[in-house]
Amino acid sequence: MKINNRIPALGIDFGGTAIKMGLVDQRGNLLETIQAPTAGNGTPEKFLDLVETGLTRLAPRRRVAGIGVGVPGFVNFDQGFIYNLTNVRGWKEVPLAAMLQKRFGLPACVENDVNAMALGECAFGAGRGRRHAVFATLGTGVGGAVVINGELYRGAYSMAGEIGHIPIVMHGRCAPEGRGGLELYVGNRRIAQYARAGLRRAGRGTLLGRLAGHDPRRITPRIIAAAARRNDPLALRIFDRVADCLATAFAGVTYLLQPEVIIVGGGVAQSGRILFAPLRRHLRERLHPQFARRIKVIPARLGAAAGMIGCAVLVFQARADIAMLRKKRFSN
Amino acid sequence: MKINNRIPALGIDFGGTAIKMGLVDQRGNLLETIQAPTAGNGTPEKFLDLVETGLTRLAPRRRVAGIGVGVPGFVNFDQGFIYNLTNVRGWKEVPLAAMLQKRFGLPACVENDVNAMALGECAFGAGRGRRHAVFATLGTGVGGAVVINGELYRGAYSMAGEIGHIPIVMHGRCAPEGRGGLELYVGNRRIAQYARAGLRRAGRGTLLGRLAGHDPRRITPRIIAAAARRNDPLALRIFDRVADCLATAFAGVTYLLQPEVIIVGGGVAQSGRILFAPLRRHLRERLHPQFARRIKVIPARLGAAAGMIGCAVLVFQARADIAMLRKKRFSN
Repeated sequence: MKINNRIPALGIDFGGTAIKMGLVDQRGNLLETIQAPTAGNGTPEKFLDLVETGLTRLAPRRRVAGIGVGVPGFVNFDQGFIYNLTNVRGWKEVPLAAMLQKRFGLPACVENDVNAMALGECAFGAGRGRRHAVFATLGTGVGGAVVINGELYRGAYSMAGEIGHIPIVMHGRCAPEGRGGLELYVGNRRIAQYARAGLRRAGRGTLLGRLAGHDPRRITPRIIAAAARRNDPLALRIFDRVADCLATAFAGVTYLLQPEVIIVGGGVAQSGRILFAPLRRHLRERLHPQFARRIKVIPARLGAAAGMIGCAVLVFQARADIAMLRKKRFSN
Repeated sequence: MKINNRIPALGIDFGGTAIKMGLVDQRGNLLETIQAPTAGNGTPEKFLDLVETGLTRLAPRRRVAGIGVGVPGFVNFDQGFIYNLTNVRGWKEVPLAAMLQKRFGLPACVENDVNAMALGECAFGAGRGRRHAVFATLGTGVGGAVVINGELYRGAYSMAGEIGHIPIVMHGRCAPEGRGGLELYVGNRRIAQYARAGLRRAGRGTLLGRLAGHDPRRITPRIIAAAARRNDPLALRIFDRVADCLATAFAGVTYLLQPEVIIVGGGVAQSGRILFAPLRRHLRERLHPQFARRIKVIPARLGAAAGMIGCAVLVFQARADIAMLRKKRFSN
């Protein structure tokens, strides 16, 4: 089977608030997108209708290589099966890939959203041209994914890449996922907590306090980053602490996997060098020079498009695999 | 090229004290072995002479598929090149695979010794039939290796698998490899140190003290294990602590890679359930049930043969790769 490089795929980023659909070509270009709120489209049936609308609007007169969907929850990629979604009701045990295939007659695959983003970044974003990469996304929690030889590594049971639960403090905080896990120290809420505690100690004089209008509830990582950029000592201390926690987990990742790059995305990563400068310094200090000089920590590049692009890459990779399998069968 | 399954390979475990050579068939059977002290055979030239003796003695009238060597140090597997060996002089920048190929006209490969052991265990030992496994060996330090899809995963620069340096205590002990690394808490010397400190506090009454003849210098992990097996509270506490440190690092490994098994070898692992019972318990407590119920922690099975067998597996895998490459070229 010859693969036609011109045929794009439909990548769908199924998020808790919006469903984004994009037509992506095999060079990773996002040709066109549409989006709809998840509320009102969030049941499997309505989602399929939405995909039909998407296909009609985005590719009215052209062939589509397949449909890839990234969802916030546990999936079995090989079976295209959703176990359940974290924040969307009505998605328990849904064989979504089979449903898409049946309705549209197109190859379909389903992946966890963070995995899809990681694959997008590795194929066409910050990790372009890299063989081995690890991806981390910073938000309420810390998500992650592992790419080996340019393909997602999913582990023995499709659950690998949970960087957020890697312990960094043996006798640290407790959670259902164990003790001392990374995201217990660098999740968005924890960062805001550091800031509130710091402000209580520092009194009203700090820039950070002023930027938040002296209202502790208004403190977000974005405001802390703004204060840090203007050299507020408390804000800088908070970013240094977050960076060192990340560096501790990344040191473990580097010693175990030695990827070429660790790609960091998500809200806090948009703080730029306020985060990356101390992160790289701490990671260097936490590694033997032989490892330190080789590992690169870089910001994600595709932003909100990473998920859609990654979902399309899944389709292209699946089709290439099928093509190779057929070829092999012929050659035997 | 048809691969002849009957042709064995020569696996060589090049250790700091002994060089062990074994003829290994493609089912992982160690057919015959000889061994020589490293002292006196440790230069590249003398090592090649020793290999010649080995080939003559072990396979006088039969074909050999190739030679695999596992060495204690940094290597570049793809180039069959030794950067340097940790405890053997005269092995800096040695293109050993090329030298072996030239002298014996056989395919040759060179690998780090822990990687070779891991591959042996995964192919024919404790990890037989597993696709994804992580291997750890407990000794003066903690070595490790990662096996993905039945093959060694070496990382971007051949240095992956350094489980011993994974941080478990963010603000912990310092070493050239960073802060709070696993082996700083569970290396043999550290274990003996725990025991000596405990004995100082406990006085002369403990069983552990008696087993060591009340001589702190005679305390080894083996004596501590003997005391633990007889329910000495101090010895049990030490093993519990070592197990929890290991569990902390293994929790990180499981969250990141989700292998099917973690295989534990080396001296302290021979303590059997004295180590494995608390290790499994702590790991279970440090993981979400979804991960805890799937991961298995098992003792290595091949003992001193693992390295020789793993080196032979490298030869078989390399030959299979070449066969596949040739096939591909024909089929295009």
